[in-house]
Amino acid sequence: MSEVIAAVDAIDVRFPTSRELDGSDAMNPEPDYSAAYVTLRTSGGEEGFGLAFTVGRGNDVQVAAIRALAPLVVGLPVAEVLADLRGFSDRLTGDSQLRWLGPHKGAIHMAAGAIVNAAWDLYARREGKPLWRLLAEMSPTQLVSLVDFRYLRDALTPEEALDLLQRAQPGREQRQNDLLARGYPAYTTTPGWLGYTDEKLVRLSKEAVDDGFGLIKLKVGADNDTDIRRVALAREAVGAGIRIAIDANQAWGVEQAISWLKSLAAYDPYWIEEPTSPDDVLGHAAIRQAVAPIKVATGEHCHNQVMFKQLLQANAIDVLQLDATRVAGVNENIAILLLAAKFGVPVCPHAGGVGLCEMVQHLAMFDYVAVSGSTEGRVIEYVDHLHQHFVDPVAIRGGRYVAPEGPGIGARMRPESVAAYKFPDGPQWTTQR
Amino acid sequence: MSEVIAAVDAIDVRFPTSRELDGSDAMNPEPDYSAAYVTLRTSGGEEGFGLAFTVGRGNDVQVAAIRALAPLVVGLPVAEVLADLRGFSDRLTGDSQLRWLGPHKGAIHMAAGAIVNAAWDLYARREGKPLWRLLAEMSPTQLVSLVDFRYLRDALTPEEALDLLQRAQPGREQRQNDLLARGYPAYTTTPGWLGYTDEKLVRLSKEAVDDGFGLIKLKVGADNDTDIRRVALAREAVGAGIRIAIDANQAWGVEQAISWLKSLAAYDPYWIEEPTSPDDVLGHAAIRQAVAPIKVATGEHCHNQVMFKQLLQANAIDVLQLDATRVAGVNENIAILLLAAKFGVPVCPHAGGVGLCEMVQHLAMFDYVAVSGSTEGRVIEYVDHLHQHFVDPVAIRGGRYVAPEGPGIGARMRPESVAAYKFPDGPQWTTQR
Repeated sequence: MSEVIAAVDAIDVRFPTSRELDGSDAMNPEPDYSAAYVTLRTSGGEEGFGLAFTVGRGNDVQVAAIRALAPLVVGLPVAEVLADLRGFSDRLTGDSQLRWLGPHKGAIHMAAGAIVNAAWDLYARREGKPLWRLLAEMSPTQLVSLVDFRYLRDALTPEEALDLLQRAQPGREQRQNDLLARGYPAYTTTPGWLGYTDEKLVRLSKEAVDDGFGLIKLKVGADNDTDIRRVALAREAVGAGIRIAIDANQAWGVEQAISWLKSLAAYDPYWIEEPTSPDDVLGHAAIRQAVAPIKVATGEHCHNQVMFKQLLQANAIDVLQLDATRVAGVNENIAILLLAAKFGVPVCPHAGGVGLCEMVQHLAMFDYVAVSGSTEGRVIEYVDHLHQHFVDPVAIRGGRYVAPEGPGIGARMRPESVAAYKFPDGPQWTTQR
Repeated sequence: MSEVIAAVDAIDVRFPTSRELDGSDAMNPEPDYSAAYVTLRTSGGEEGFGLAFTVGRGNDVQVAAIRALAPLVVGLPVAEVLADLRGFSDRLTGDSQLRWLGPHKGAIHMAAGAIVNAAWDLYARREGKPLWRLLAEMSPTQLVSLVDFRYLRDALTPEEALDLLQRAQPGREQRQNDLLARGYPAYTTTPGWLGYTDEKLVRLSKEAVDDGFGLIKLKVGADNDTDIRRVALAREAVGAGIRIAIDANQAWGVEQAISWLKSLAAYDPYWIEEPTSPDDVLGHAAIRQAVAPIKVATGEHCHNQVMFKQLLQANAIDVLQLDATRVAGVNENIAILLLAAKFGVPVCPHAGGVGLCEMVQHLAMFDYVAVSGSTEGRVIEYVDHLHQHFVDPVAIRGGRYVAPEGPGIGARMRPESVAAYKFPDGPQWTTQR
């Protein structure tokens, strides 16, 4: 009998980060960074790992959504799944009944992403390669075949995608060597959480510069005077040569965003992230036009490739911040990287969270080697917490991500961490709550 | 002790509609029309009813999402809740952890809508009024206070909303009498499901005209030749004086929609509904420009007021099809009605499903009496099934909805139906499966 997918397990894992106000911002005052953690098991005893990141309450709903999708793929022959990961993705995102809960958005779409990513993890483990290298070694034709172009053709045709991948082929090997030698540029959000004191903000900002980061990020949007004070303090701490990005986490309406940003312009913010509703394509375009040269960035809540397509078509963003677990996994993120390359917009992935740094680095590195061919204006977010819970934690050296060489997509958690932080019955929740 | 919300119960109710191919379309070949059914119970023994409509699998996820939100409101004093339904809505849509699963979209947003609607149902029952009348008798100031303008101000300010409601005040009483005397125009989708034979399509189309409907709707988008044959048959059956709307249920890309519609233009379709991804604001605008005078309609999958705002700002739609259970309930639908009125776009609500006709009629009737002040170009969808499961089923006379006079929002199901169709353990599922 051929090997089949035997099970798709989902576990509710939560970290009590709200106790320290790590991760606090204008919309998330007290997050408990969490993961709906997926283990895809084959009848041959192999495993693939994926997850959907959430911020606490609702992680159980995310687990329920994964369990609702699991019957669609349990029993499928593994060889067929890995030979057609596009078909596997379509099966999960296109189910005629479950798609009603989206379509292509929210809990059910993130659940599809967690399972799709687990299948990619299994594939990469089998091939003995990190995801970035697995993708970077695929042919342009193979890569194009992974993408669903149904709703994209008015902005990007398969022929255009093929052409841009082919044009990036000549330098692949050289860029791969460069990546292995020098890593990929990172920026850090560690200094700037809204719950931190001024003293902690200044100290961490200086430390970030000392650690080699050229860009730091501060949360804004709760109170205008506080923002002015904090951004001014950070600018004073890091000097004129370091970029300071600011992140409003959707706090503002369109006109409010424009006026608030004018009050911060004197401190030369590099980009404004999530100035308003993540759904407001036209709003982002209006803000961008009004606040230039401050760049506009968004993406961590951008729920699918159709929304990214429009952000690009409307000239609404300067920086595209894809996320490893918001959309339907590796396939949709390849589509998003191709769209960004077509429109010439740099991708600076959203990370932090639980395992997002570990996963998203692969997408940025693949982009460098085989899609955009550049790290110009590109940085991966980095936040220094929760990495100890991963089997293959990221490594940062001199403000750059070290290219991972182990197999997989980076989502595998340490079994003892899963056991300890399982919600609500793991010992970290039953004994310290 | 003051009366509080004692419980928010959610039950998974599914009807095996796939057995008859009722409701079949290009994206939903075999739906089992379902409801995540909410009963909000007070400590004083009162009840309010709401629901989220789904099409089968995934209804359990919808129930899980409602249960995840319930703790946010259980224990709240009922008097405070009903005095501030805007605050109640914000509490459910703005929870800093649960909003991550959207934000403002998908399962978690529909769950908020089901609970918000249940609170409105309780309120209307207390007042002894149908929802449409409860709303139509509120002052413009009260109505404006129910809306969250954070992300709307660039398209509609509270002042503009107040102004347009005030301008609609003079004729309220006359229109209310007209509504009670004549009802509200309906159209029917009953003839046009994709799974029906040509013979059934022709027969039901003729019956619809005989029943007084001036507009019928056909599903399209699965096969171009089939569509041409079916639309031609329907046109022949109903003659030139009856409007035929067509509905592609998101089947096409932007360019594909335009060419496919050209092949059907000879049969004079009145509107094309959901020609492409419901998220594609710019795509709808491009299609509208290319296929005029065929009108472009969408909304049943439009996940929140920010998306409707953009569809209007981009001149992307001729017809706005709000849905009773896709967005966060009555409050958000008031915002959507106000936006539509500001932009002069008629609202023709999506219905069918489970209880959608029963619920959505209240919103259209409120719109007529107190917002747009008109039924010109406006019709409520009507599908003739599953009404027998509701305590207050809709009544259609001469192709028009009869204005309901009983208290509530229309979502209350018959207890025996809930017991019979409860999934997976109701007798309709255990004995006939």
